[in-house]
Amino acid sequence: MDTKDIGKPGSGKGVGFEIHRLMGELFPICRSITGDGFRRTLEILHRHIPLEVREVPSGTRVFDWTVPKEWNIHDAYIKDPKGEKIVDFRKSNLHVVSYSVPIHTTLSLEELKRHLYTLPDLPNWIPYRTSYYNQGWGFCLSHRQFLALEEGDYEVVIDSTLADGSLTYGEWLLRGETDEEILISTHACHPSLANDNLSGVGLATLLAKHMGAMPRRFSYRFLFIPGTIGAITWLAQNEHKTGKIRNGLVITGVGDRGDIAYKRSRRGNTEIDRAAAHVLGRSGQPYRLLDFHPYGYDERQYCSPGFNLPVGRFSRTPFGEYPEYHTSADNMEFVSADSLADSYEMIRSIIDVLEGNRVYVSRNQKCEPQLGKRELYSSAGANELPLLWVLNMSDGGNSLLDIAERSGLEFSALKKAADSLAKANLLEESGL
Amino acid sequence: MDTKDIGKPGSGKGVGFEIHRLMGELFPICRSITGDGFRRTLEILHRHIPLEVREVPSGTRVFDWTVPKEWNIHDAYIKDPKGEKIVDFRKSNLHVVSYSVPIHTTLSLEELKRHLYTLPDLPNWIPYRTSYYNQGWGFCLSHRQFLALEEGDYEVVIDSTLADGSLTYGEWLLRGETDEEILISTHACHPSLANDNLSGVGLATLLAKHMGAMPRRFSYRFLFIPGTIGAITWLAQNEHKTGKIRNGLVITGVGDRGDIAYKRSRRGNTEIDRAAAHVLGRSGQPYRLLDFHPYGYDERQYCSPGFNLPVGRFSRTPFGEYPEYHTSADNMEFVSADSLADSYEMIRSIIDVLEGNRVYVSRNQKCEPQLGKRELYSSAGANELPLLWVLNMSDGGNSLLDIAERSGLEFSALKKAADSLAKANLLEESGL
Amino acid sequence: MDTKDIGKPGSGKGVGFEIHRLMGELFPICRSITGDGFRRTLEILHRHIPLEVREVPSGTRVFDWTVPKEWNIHDAYIKDPKGEKIVDFRKSNLHVVSYSVPIHTTLSLEELKRHLYTLPDLPNWIPYRTSYYNQGWGFCLSHRQFLALEEGDYEVVIDSTLADGSLTYGEWLLRGETDEEILISTHACHPSLANDNLSGVGLATLLAKHMGAMPRRFSYRFLFIPGTIGAITWLAQNEHKTGKIRNGLVITGVGDRGDIAYKRSRRGNTEIDRAAAHVLGRSGQPYRLLDFHPYGYDERQYCSPGFNLPVGRFSRTPFGEYPEYHTSADNMEFVSADSLADSYEMIRSIIDVLEGNRVYVSRNQKCEPQLGKRELYSSAGANELPLLWVLNMSDGGNSLLDIAERSGLEFSALKKAADSLAKANLLEESGL
Repeated sequence: MDTKDIGKPGSGKGVGFEIHRLMGELFPICRSITGDGFRRTLEILHRHIPLEVREVPSGTRVFDWTVPKEWNIHDAYIKDPKGEKIVDFRKSNLHVVSYSVPIHTTLSLEELKRHLYTLPDLPNWIPYRTSYYNQGWGFCLSHRQFLALEEGDYEVVIDSTLADGSLTYGEWLLRGETDEEILISTHACHPSLANDNLSGVGLATLLAKHMGAMPRRFSYRFLFIPGTIGAITWLAQNEHKTGKIRNGLVITGVGDRGDIAYKRSRRGNTEIDRAAAHVLGRSGQPYRLLDFHPYGYDERQYCSPGFNLPVGRFSRTPFGEYPEYHTSADNMEFVSADSLADSYEMIRSIIDVLEGNRVYVSRNQKCEPQLGKRELYSSAGANELPLLWVLNMSDGGNSLLDIAERSGLEFSALKKAADSLAKANLLEESGL
Repeated sequence: MDTKDIGKPGSGKGVGFEIHRLMGELFPICRSITGDGFRRTLEILHRHIPLEVREVPSGTRVFDWTVPKEWNIHDAYIKDPKGEKIVDFRKSNLHVVSYSVPIHTTLSLEELKRHLYTLPDLPNWIPYRTSYYNQGWGFCLSHRQFLALEEGDYEVVIDSTLADGSLTYGEWLLRGETDEEILISTHACHPSLANDNLSGVGLATLLAKHMGAMPRRFSYRFLFIPGTIGAITWLAQNEHKTGKIRNGLVITGVGDRGDIAYKRSRRGNTEIDRAAAHVLGRSGQPYRLLDFHPYGYDERQYCSPGFNLPVGRFSRTPFGEYPEYHTSADNMEFVSADSLADSYEMIRSIIDVLEGNRVYVSRNQKCEPQLGKRELYSSAGANELPLLWVLNMSDGGNSLLDIAERSGLEFSALKKAADSLAKANLLEESGL
Repeated sequence: MDTKDIGKPGSGKGVGFEIHRLMGELFPICRSITGDGFRRTLEILHRHIPLEVREVPSGTRVFDWTVPKEWNIHDAYIKDPKGEKIVDFRKSNLHVVSYSVPIHTTLSLEELKRHLYTLPDLPNWIPYRTSYYNQGWGFCLSHRQFLALEEGDYEVVIDSTLADGSLTYGEWLLRGETDEEILISTHACHPSLANDNLSGVGLATLLAKHMGAMPRRFSYRFLFIPGTIGAITWLAQNEHKTGKIRNGLVITGVGDRGDIAYKRSRRGNTEIDRAAAHVLGRSGQPYRLLDFHPYGYDERQYCSPGFNLPVGRFSRTPFGEYPEYHTSADNMEFVSADSLADSYEMIRSIIDVLEGNRVYVSRNQKCEPQLGKRELYSSAGANELPLLWVLNMSDGGNSLLDIAERSGLEFSALKKAADSLAKANLLEESGL
């Protein structure tokens, strides 16, 4: 890694370190879809961006769902027949199945085993398990430790509460020139898992921070929500606002060392889908474009048929395709500052396309204008083509992205050409 | 061949034997586009299905055509100069050119040769020839026999009649829940030729028989007709019924050992075309999808521009692509019970798609319904995807076949998912 | 080359020699975008076709442009310090930068060099340069000669005039049965350059001559114009006529030995684009189809968004892709009579498709007509297919070119079939 960019905020590789640092701060907290861990996470993000914290009471109906009780946990462990703590929540918050009800009892090994979860094929790693909507309790541990358990009585303690409270999420609307919105949504409900999804939380936070310091055509709505129930809650309570969403991204798993995979919206060919395809196609890196499928993260809700929003998903290796997914191996070493910086830059480039993607109308529709007399032709012929493409296609029916797709030229070159032509009064922005 | 399925009616390989047995019974009959051979054929089919026999008088105008005179034949032979019968209709009904006028005369070899047809490149086989619309007579024989003919006078007898009568065809309308129809059309006008088209006649008969014993959404119209003039006659006399035809298949040449070839309708992307492509694409067998072309069997008439019906053609090796076509080598050994059974099963699978291809509307268009609380999620994730696809796409604009095409999932898995979801009251059938 | 066709006018290879001979006559003339060289060129073309000569005064506004002053040149040379003419316009009219203002002065070598243009990578060739819209002067010479120049004073003479006058172009409207037009446009403004574009000028002239002697469905408008400013001038002054242009071709660079490259119109799928693709696709030769791009010859103006005419460009090797382009090496040896003949024949075949591309309606939309009784079936099955395709597709919505594309059959075979069917009263031309 080139170190000269370290610490340069909001660009280059420095932003990768900024994100990584923030993730490290958030990593130890035990989060779930509700509870104080989520609140503590938002407090830390608030040091970077002035997000608002929303609380939605347990029991609130949100479409077909109900906001669940709030879960909090203070401690949990298993003591072996000799009285030694062999599984300890304080060592890894993955040890307790999320949403486990409180328990304090003593069990035989056989009875205990019904509540233990391991990964036999990955014997050194602790799995991550949840039980949000089925009351129960359980512990996760490495299979290696599981195999070493001896017969005898085990003391089990889960000092948790599951009670009426609220679902918490963070929201920041960063206003731009227009009230058309770009939605940036990221789930923040997982405990000590780095790539899924502190990487998304960290990237979205730094993106919000840096976007806030720049001129913006669009408004940007950042959501830090619990997965599934959070998106459903936001949509249920903000249905009237969804008409303003011009484009959106679900950001998850952006810190691993794999290639970028962009998943298209349900509509498949919206502006964000095309912008992402354009940027990735010219990145010089291997990447994948995935067609929409109704399995995944919160794009499932944003792209449900009744909303059908132009929201894609930006990830590196998709969840489930890497063995570390939802295990203790998804830790701070699993993610890299380089990958985080690369994901950040690519998203910024996609946003640059969205921001710059206007429809122009040439003032000279009949024959070319005489560029020579306006000193627009550079001596290098290379710069003439973007000018000619923009002029020829700007009949009011083509955006710059349309022109980029048809011409095969880079969006930024066409943007620059359009700016020059507009400055020379040869082009005006379409009123449409 | 696995024998355990033998005799199991209407499914497995047993149906191949059933069809083969019926074909064997029909094989010796001398059929043409009119006459008693066609009537005898329908009598035999009537033992399986209650088809109705239609008679259309000679001279009836049917669009640009006229129903021809009826042709019947009792005997025909050629005697050589020594008085020996060297060509005998009773040994093979292919020996006489179909629609030969009656003749009884004596000719020199040179004169006789003008009325003889052979296959010089396939010297052991007798060709099949017709002369429906040009009065004349002729004999077909093997080229080997032709070469052995010696100089001298030959006695020629064709004891036929060509006179006003009628064109005969069989029709069975098997009513279903709705009066929308699936048309199954097969030509039954060829004499002792097995693949072309006793295979189609036999398969359609068994299909009709077994469909009759099952619940049906659609009505099924089975036509056993003479090629070309039969289809034209039916269309001319039933023009008002064609609006009910939702899909249709011309079934011919389904018993040879070649791969299945489905020929698309003129429209090219109708439901039957897509159902056939889906089923064949998942069959695990090699197959071909042929674009529509205006040469072939009765799809030429059903797909004439004034009707343009959604009717495809289901065959194995297309006619003309195998040397046995229209020769004495297209006999009962040329067809196999395995191929017949495979053709039958594939057509049944296509019909299953048509029967099950409904448009549903999800009752939860905004965000996913909570499947967990309804116990629809199986523990195996593999079954979750069809549920999610059906829910996400069921906005009233997509049929299950649309969803199968977009998702890449098998139609039957989506059908099963839709049934579960409808049962759980999460889905209703679209009123459209 | 096969010599048996030599001298056969308007077809075969003879036409290649005819074009080559005409080009040879035009080659020595010094042409520019205005001036007497252009007029002399049109005088020579007038011996072949009765074109009209148009004069448009300097200063006339044509859209965003202004018709420039007229440039004429009588002599030009450079004398070296010893008084020897080392660069002489009379030896090659490429030596003088086109539109050079008059000058008579003496300069040091260093000062002179600012006005000299060479091709360092192609040291034996003289480049072709212009300075239409920036007043200035210059000489072009081989880099080899440039390197041999010695220190000292050089006498420079350019005996030119740049003054109010007019822009000259040639136009011939060859009327056909209808007033719908095929536009044939070719630029005639280059001095002694053979392929660019005396090849286009010569081909268009012979094409006009031979088309004039044949029956024509469409009217043909031939334009011999200066590049860019000529097309803009014609469009500005004839805007009301452009609605009659049904198809058009810009013809340039048709004499080199490279493969044909057809560049599609801006619309991309117009009749001329499809006709060219059909003809080239069946030519048995390598060829290229280029998507429209707004850089090139006068298609830039015809395909500007306000006109968006169905005009493609027909060339062999596109300009700029061969080193001889815009140099003294683009001479009469660079072009071949064979290539010229081949280009001519291909354009004629494209025109044949346009002329014959009608929409027919079958009189028998419901079922096939009985072809047998009309003796349309040839004994060879090969001729049956075009008949069946034309009948099946002629529902009023398909032209013969549509049918050629769908069937994969050659246009000429379908045209012949349509003619037979129309003669047999089975087909009528669509009123649409």
